Amino acid sequence: MSLPILIIGGGPSGLAASHALASVGQPCILVEKENRLGGAPILTGYAKLVPSGEWARDAIGGMVERVQGSGEIEVVTEATVNAFNGEPGRFNATLSNGRTVDASAAILCTGFTHFDSHNKPEWGFGTFPDVVTTAQVEQMISSGNGVRCPSDGRKPGRVAILLCVGSRDRQIGREWCSKICCTVSANLAMEIREEIPDCHVYIYYMDIRTFGLYETKYYWRSQEEFKVKYIKARIAEVTSNGEQLVVKGEDTLVKRPITIPFDLVVHAIGMDPNVDNKSIASTFGIDLERHGYVGRGNAYGNTAETSRAGVFVAGAACGPETIDDSIAQGHAAALAALGLQQPARVSA
Amino acid sequence: MSLPILIIGGGPSGLAASHALASVGQPCILVEKENRLGGAPILTGYAKLVPSGEWARDAIGGMVERVQGSGEIEVVTEATVNAFNGEPGRFNATLSNGRTVDASAAILCTGFTHFDSHNKPEWGFGTFPDVVTTAQVEQMISSGNGVRCPSDGRKPGRVAILLCVGSRDRQIGREWCSKICCTVSANLAMEIREEIPDCHVYIYYMDIRTFGLYETKYYWRSQEEFKVKYIKARIAEVTSNGEQLVVKGEDTLVKRPITIPFDLVVHAIGMDPNVDNKSIASTFGIDLERHGYVGRGNAYGNTAETSRAGVFVAGAACGPETIDDSIAQGHAAALAALGLQQPARVSA
Repeated sequence: MSLPILIIGGGPSGLAASHALASVGQPCILVEKENRLGGAPILTGYAKLVPSGEWARDAIGGMVERVQGSGEIEVVTEATVNAFNGEPGRFNATLSNGRTVDASAAILCTGFTHFDSHNKPEWGFGTFPDVVTTAQVEQMISSGNGVRCPSDGRKPGRVAILLCVGSRDRQIGREWCSKICCTVSANLAMEIREEIPDCHVYIYYMDIRTFGLYETKYYWRSQEEFKVKYIKARIAEVTSNGEQLVVKGEDTLVKRPITIPFDLVVHAIGMDPNVDNKSIASTFGIDLERHGYVGRGNAYGNTAETSRAGVFVAGAACGPETIDDSIAQGHAAALAALGLQQPARVSA
Repeated sequence: MSLPILIIGGGPSGLAASHALASVGQPCILVEKENRLGGAPILTGYAKLVPSGEWARDAIGGMVERVQGSGEIEVVTEATVNAFNGEPGRFNATLSNGRTVDASAAILCTGFTHFDSHNKPEWGFGTFPDVVTTAQVEQMISSGNGVRCPSDGRKPGRVAILLCVGSRDRQIGREWCSKICCTVSANLAMEIREEIPDCHVYIYYMDIRTFGLYETKYYWRSQEEFKVKYIKARIAEVTSNGEQLVVKGEDTLVKRPITIPFDLVVHAIGMDPNVDNKSIASTFGIDLERHGYVGRGNAYGNTAETSRAGVFVAGAACGPETIDDSIAQGHAAALAALGLQQPARVSA
């Protein structure tokens, strides 16, 4: 009988990998450091997901239920992997709860860490209560309480969403693009306009990166159906005039300074490498790429390879990623790990 | 013994799906309409791929070799599927060569069609021989002959790459973004600068969409190491002054008309839905989405679902896609199809 496959991280990619393996009769052990499954969409409390429009609690919650209901998947929460030794087909892992498990392969679905907006202090987060993050707006919407100004609970009449907070910003050591914030922000802007029809919503951007089919579903639709306004700008600072927040910067299309008042300013926060990546890399004996994400091996054998044979990776652990592609990558990693069960046929 | 899985299309996603299935001992039949495998990267003659930097002939060629060398995969070239009937677990397909095959599932890896630049006549393709496409520049590089002006074979001193040709353009019915052209163009610009160091290369863009980690690897690197110049502009037309091509438009950052001479103008052509999609949809009884790509079903069970149970999809058949994600999606589809072999465990 084959050994179980060890999956680390219970977000979309880890849930996808475990469930898909269970579907073909392969036992798995899913190790999650938090006290419940679901990853960022559940633990952070996302609202409606891009691009399906389904609520995170239904969509990802459904994935959690399927995993928890599977006889092939053992879920271990509040645990991490402290040691990992052996060879492809026969690894041995020691968990933080003291247990040891044998596994034929490991799949790192260890995700990302949301950028902490305190690291961009000139944009007002931590100073002004009505400067919030996209994660907080997701929570406001998913809670059912609606989007409100934290300072006094009022409905905002004017909202600014600032893109690239913790992305494309060398000053603070984040030169990568976080891939999905443009589209998520367009989605949230439409949600706000739907809930508060007389609220003006502006999106401040460098480049709008609603790539592929997101272009029609989010960029065009947010402008045409929902009258969201896009301003190409460099933001200098977010201050207050005593009554409202003030966003100062330069409109880079008309080359003019702009100073515009808002009730609520939203940081579209980026995706940092998981803060645990150094220790994960050390435990699993794998390489990180230059920004601190998990490095990929050869893509043309399987996109899920790391620098160590038998240790695979999927989703935002490798860099900013969408939920859909994280799921597909989880399946790709699952299939690669499954291939190890038939060693004669595994590709290089 | 289980029935084979039918895979339609021998590009990156189809090669990935077949090989991964073979790796776990699952027989497949791979049907390709052209006379050889490899899809767009091989048939069009791509040069170095994004993001690995490997030559397409090695990277995708290697995938082709693995598939052709597998005892589990039967390759049928110069054939299409003319009829497809039955139920998940037991379908029957009639091929255009008259043969019928039984299959437990089908995976559509039917890809895309390159935008035909003749449909954007004011940008000079078809009128001026030195207006070419990114596909042609890929061929110039992969042939080993270098990038040259087709009119007289000279090395260009000034090259303009125009982004979004056949993308984000409602005038010609292509309102989607083709996702990868920005990054591919930055890659080609660096290739040109490497081959012809004194050549000036300009990229004309609306938004630069080098998303995720492509930002550092392509956007920053092309500017800083390779001195590629980016101009945010709306292009009006490409004409000739008798000696050189002339790109006319408006620089949208400085709001000024621009008229700049070039030796070679490159259309960064987009990804249209496969021209065969209507007939594919009819044969397989699946829905297309509004632009004519294959529609996806529920993403949270498996990203590879179509509107018909047992018929899966991967890669650019569903919309503009990168090669890496096409491969991951091919694996996801493979695993979903494999799940059908154990019907009791297949998710909804």
